[in-house]
Amino acid sequence: MEFKKEFTAGIIIIGNEILSGRTVDKNTSFIASWLNEKGISVEEVRAIPDKEQVIIDAVNELRNKFAYVFTTGGIGPTHDDITSQSISKVFNQKYQYHPDAYKLLEEYYKNQDFNEGRKKMAKMPEYAKLIPNPKTFAAGFYVENVFVLPGVPSILQVMIPYLDKIIKNGKKILSISIDSKLRESLLAEGLADIQKKYKNVDIGSYPYFTDKPGTVLVLRSIDEVNIKHCSNDVNDLIDRLN
Amino acid sequence: MEFKKEFTAGIIIIGNEILSGRTVDKNTSFIASWLNEKGISVEEVRAIPDKEQVIIDAVNELRNKFAYVFTTGGIGPTHDDITSQSISKVFNQKYQYHPDAYKLLEEYYKNQDFNEGRKKMAKMPEYAKLIPNPKTFAAGFYVENVFVLPGVPSILQVMIPYLDKIIKNGKKILSISIDSKLRESLLAEGLADIQKKYKNVDIGSYPYFTDKPGTVLVLRSIDEVNIKHCSNDVNDLIDRLN
Repeated sequence: MEFKKEFTAGIIIIGNEILSGRTVDKNTSFIASWLNEKGISVEEVRAIPDKEQVIIDAVNELRNKFAYVFTTGGIGPTHDDITSQSISKVFNQKYQYHPDAYKLLEEYYKNQDFNEGRKKMAKMPEYAKLIPNPKTFAAGFYVENVFVLPGVPSILQVMIPYLDKIIKNGKKILSISIDSKLRESLLAEGLADIQKKYKNVDIGSYPYFTDKPGTVLVLRSIDEVNIKHCSNDVNDLIDRLN
Repeated sequence: MEFKKEFTAGIIIIGNEILSGRTVDKNTSFIASWLNEKGISVEEVRAIPDKEQVIIDAVNELRNKFAYVFTTGGIGPTHDDITSQSISKVFNQKYQYHPDAYKLLEEYYKNQDFNEGRKKMAKMPEYAKLIPNPKTFAAGFYVENVFVLPGVPSILQVMIPYLDKIIKNGKKILSISIDSKLRESLLAEGLADIQKKYKNVDIGSYPYFTDKPGTVLVLRSIDEVNIKHCSNDVNDLIDRLN
């Protein structure tokens, strides 16, 4: 299944947390599921360290390749949060306080010390547009097709809905899961034939190795009629093999 | 913290499972934790679809950039498993049955149908060296610095130990976690000063937003003395702020 460039996206996970093995990345799954609903296909995910030139190069490569790029991580108050300044360099814009982002934080911290670290979270590329953060009030932002989000999943998840109207919908990517309860190697030949018949349906095959090994088949397509026919063929194949 | 190229690695997660949001990737965390113990730093992780040219390009890029590349996924029996043939093209080697891999599978399936799908799992680049699979007997393999592993975490995890002797150890990457129980924005200034003082220690800062928000600080270094001094300074900072 090939998507037109206008319905493609890349995700860049910034920070050492994932690379060091300390944390399992949950943001990709959340962002990708949301994009699938919107008919946008995630074509690449990259996890990279907090290194300015690496961030700049990855963002430039992916924003040229895909319609949208989402970054997560590196927009907090600490020394290792260098995403915003790196994105400023990507777009050759000044890295400076965003007046609205600054006001939101000033209000939020009015009874506390509004220190340098807290102020830093309002620093962005000069022409950034804000993505509201109803949880901790440090906004995300976007410039052209690059959307800059925090790394903390619970915050990212309440910010994503604000992007719903900004990002154009394609045709929803439909998905049908079928647990065949059969070994993948038994299904392989029949599945290959079915895949040849339905070019605009992606048939994924995911074996599991529990006490009773089996395989989950996942059909994905934007074509409602074909995915239905394809799933009928898959069910027939499973019946024949059982 | 910068690592010499000989102690760096990249990971390539192949398949639509992660990109579609269906599954959270657990292999990165496992491989990265193991490599950290060996003193090898994972510098990039890429998740890409089952598309031959995309696989070839990603493997070529990362195998030049880093000392080791690990791929996961796409070596099963089905139509969408195209990693082995793609790696053959990367190294300009014939894609053919590996006699030992073939024998292992033939033995394993001796009382069952040794069909095309099952045989396919023995197809590899001509000069591939095997990585044993004590669980389902479909071997992984490596060519030069590219290590090709399955996507199913429970199988990957029993295969990794076989690579322990093949991959040269660096100095173990030490890690100290400290739960500051303080908001990240309070710590930011003091942490930046400490980071400046200890160039060969990476200080990562990971906020959490539960009922009582706080921040976990993770120090990483290969220098046993410096990481200890650095953690003392971090603990002093936390005491001062409490």
